[in-house]
Amino acid sequence: MKQYKYVLPDNEMPTHWYNIIADMKTPPPPYRHPVTLELLGPDDLAPVFPAALIAQEVSTERWIEIPDEVQDVLKMWRPAPLYRAHRWEKALDTPAKIYYKWEGVSPAGSHKPNTAVAQCYYGKQEGLEGFATETGAGQWGSALSFATNLFGLKCKVFMVAVSFQQKPYRRIMMETWGGNVVPSPSSETNAGRAILAENPESPGSLGIAISEAIEYAVTHPGYKYSLGSVVNFVLLHQTVIGLEALKQMEMAGDYPDILIGCAGGGSNAAGLIFPFMRDKLTGARPDLRAIFVESTACPSMTRGIYAYDWGDTAKTGPVAKMHTVGHDFIPAPVHAGGLRYHGMAPSICALLQQGYAEARAYHQVEVLEAAQSFAQAEGFIVAPETAHAVKAAMDEALVCKAAGESKVILFNASGHGHFDLGAYDAYHRQALTDYKLEEEQIQRALAKLPKVAE
Amino acid sequence: MKQYKYVLPDNEMPTHWYNIIADMKTPPPPYRHPVTLELLGPDDLAPVFPAALIAQEVSTERWIEIPDEVQDVLKMWRPAPLYRAHRWEKALDTPAKIYYKWEGVSPAGSHKPNTAVAQCYYGKQEGLEGFATETGAGQWGSALSFATNLFGLKCKVFMVAVSFQQKPYRRIMMETWGGNVVPSPSSETNAGRAILAENPESPGSLGIAISEAIEYAVTHPGYKYSLGSVVNFVLLHQTVIGLEALKQMEMAGDYPDILIGCAGGGSNAAGLIFPFMRDKLTGARPDLRAIFVESTACPSMTRGIYAYDWGDTAKTGPVAKMHTVGHDFIPAPVHAGGLRYHGMAPSICALLQQGYAEARAYHQVEVLEAAQSFAQAEGFIVAPETAHAVKAAMDEALVCKAAGESKVILFNASGHGHFDLGAYDAYHRQALTDYKLEEEQIQRALAKLPKVAE
Repeated sequence: MKQYKYVLPDNEMPTHWYNIIADMKTPPPPYRHPVTLELLGPDDLAPVFPAALIAQEVSTERWIEIPDEVQDVLKMWRPAPLYRAHRWEKALDTPAKIYYKWEGVSPAGSHKPNTAVAQCYYGKQEGLEGFATETGAGQWGSALSFATNLFGLKCKVFMVAVSFQQKPYRRIMMETWGGNVVPSPSSETNAGRAILAENPESPGSLGIAISEAIEYAVTHPGYKYSLGSVVNFVLLHQTVIGLEALKQMEMAGDYPDILIGCAGGGSNAAGLIFPFMRDKLTGARPDLRAIFVESTACPSMTRGIYAYDWGDTAKTGPVAKMHTVGHDFIPAPVHAGGLRYHGMAPSICALLQQGYAEARAYHQVEVLEAAQSFAQAEGFIVAPETAHAVKAAMDEALVCKAAGESKVILFNASGHGHFDLGAYDAYHRQALTDYKLEEEQIQRALAKLPKVAE
Repeated sequence: MKQYKYVLPDNEMPTHWYNIIADMKTPPPPYRHPVTLELLGPDDLAPVFPAALIAQEVSTERWIEIPDEVQDVLKMWRPAPLYRAHRWEKALDTPAKIYYKWEGVSPAGSHKPNTAVAQCYYGKQEGLEGFATETGAGQWGSALSFATNLFGLKCKVFMVAVSFQQKPYRRIMMETWGGNVVPSPSSETNAGRAILAENPESPGSLGIAISEAIEYAVTHPGYKYSLGSVVNFVLLHQTVIGLEALKQMEMAGDYPDILIGCAGGGSNAAGLIFPFMRDKLTGARPDLRAIFVESTACPSMTRGIYAYDWGDTAKTGPVAKMHTVGHDFIPAPVHAGGLRYHGMAPSICALLQQGYAEARAYHQVEVLEAAQSFAQAEGFIVAPETAHAVKAAMDEALVCKAAGESKVILFNASGHGHFDLGAYDAYHRQALTDYKLEEEQIQRALAKLPKVAE
């Protein structure tokens, strides 16, 4: 009989994270100060992040031990299963072998808790009282609420006001885990009050919410700020995905020719891809292809430029060299809210720039079509973000069909879509919109990039 | 390090279902005809159910082979993990060892697909074109839509109108898997049209939806009716839960002292409990306790009587001897919609009657309180139905604490609550209502039971 999934017992969970920086000939250039644009030292980040995370951010060690207590929590759902998509292969009539790693089994429903748990561990070690963060549709906020609760930390979540009103379920999920969720802009910060004074009905934005969360963290003793993607330490924590998948692919007797992940800030894709990418960087697997998939609504990798830019709209966070469409670019309201980030993880960008990886972008209608096909064959209803990876896997499988090639495709199914069914409904009713992005919109945003002398 | 979960590889999935009827000294008495009240023969059921399922319904074989194609589909998520609730034990400060089987990993999010898949296999074998069924909040309808789609069958779902309007997400889920969902009462059946003629704004009820589904099935060539609980063959299909758990408890080096499941029609509880109950029926584990947990809003086992009653409100289905609060009893609108069935699986009732099992009932506020405690410790947010089992496990663990006893408790975590977060929200806001059930309400309903000469 066919084998559908590859499961690892608790004791096969990775004991170390993989730090790809150690294997990059040219690592991403260091961060710059948001105001002076000078090189940023660890001290500059100290008020914002726990010290242990700053150390991981700049570490060049290849393997970083996962503390026992972190492993202990991750075992609530990890190792996550790796699936062979036999039914979908048949539906697509492809000779390709499609595998996917299923991160939807976590309590919060995505890969996000992998880093939330680690961050809370280090925050607790440092004696913090709590974390503040921002969240759009609520995916990251729920992961952090879940994790803070387990470590006895408080969690302050600034949730974009329009999502707070329209998507109550993720808010309730956060509250169930003890998170304190307020709509942003809020009256709890200067940043929020300033916006509300101008427009009491402001729908909010991720940029505003980030500003509120950072302000809250640095003005409340015992609090620091928690970030769910982009930076090195977050991507590091996500490598448990790929490290498990390496073992599981070995169980399956295959090695991927093509790796795929959707990328907003890039953490889930990097989490799957980096441990395999090591084989490419070291020359063991020179032909390995890695595809990072973004939304055409926010095409940092495919239509942006590789340049220094602020990580946040309010220009309070570090400046990083990355693929960007500009820190004040406002993407269309696609359902894949997690792919609406203007930049991309600097480590991924360096790999793209150096030719180790590829990027592509999709419109949301084609993406939902692929997700629907996947759901009908494999059962799982994925998040709209994840659907971008599904679409890329489908396209690669169809290329294999045309060429008669039996390549091995592995993608990261980063989360379920239980709170995003509105996107599927819109697709079923042919009410889903594709957004055409004018080049001048991007150029306008890019004109505001900082001038960094390298 | 502590072990948190026990996973079985694909090839350890059960190959046979366990039929408890084979081990019962006194099996439940046979069904009666809904009109004549005479003994019902397999032929009477033929227009409604596939022949293979009718054969399973009356089978006395102990082990019934699970067809390869059914096993193949179940492997999309089975074997399901068994968890040790180390964190919850600590939070409850109990010496008890608490285990739970986690059925929320199925694509539909509950145990329901275990039987939906089997029913669709046999339906396909028989050459059916599709199934019709009813659904309340959508749990069963989504399981059947998921399964029909995989076997290339059509799925007609009559969804209680008020849920259809108020809970669009499960409807969208069904549509994603290709289900054709209509609000009930509908204009597609005589039963529905009659209700609509009287009240065009009827909110519908499960009783009406059942009548519509059966009528649709018997009046549409190629269609039969699919049922998600209560009858023997459904409980049989659910025994994969307990058969896996038997192996997993062995991996854990423990054997349960107390088994717990929530029970509306009884299928998830029986699925976990019956394979262990075998050890009690055969005398190997005389002290094993099995607790079936219901809602105080519909207390068939704890306040109903053990008597013959119609299985459905419209009196079109078989009459069975069971614990019942009467076929036209209308339970309060508790969040645990799956526990609002007036009767109970006849096999469970026989075990209760013969002293092999216990029953208890809880109010919804205490139940949500327990679910909140569980979610904060274990991460998983369970369905309101499942929360009843969680509450019973908590109470038993607290009894152990008071007595200083380290008993082994195993309960079935039958599904996630991602589409039921409104119940948690109401609990957080102290807006959750407990319903007091007057004895005369039950007595009024019981007065309408059929008079069967035994």
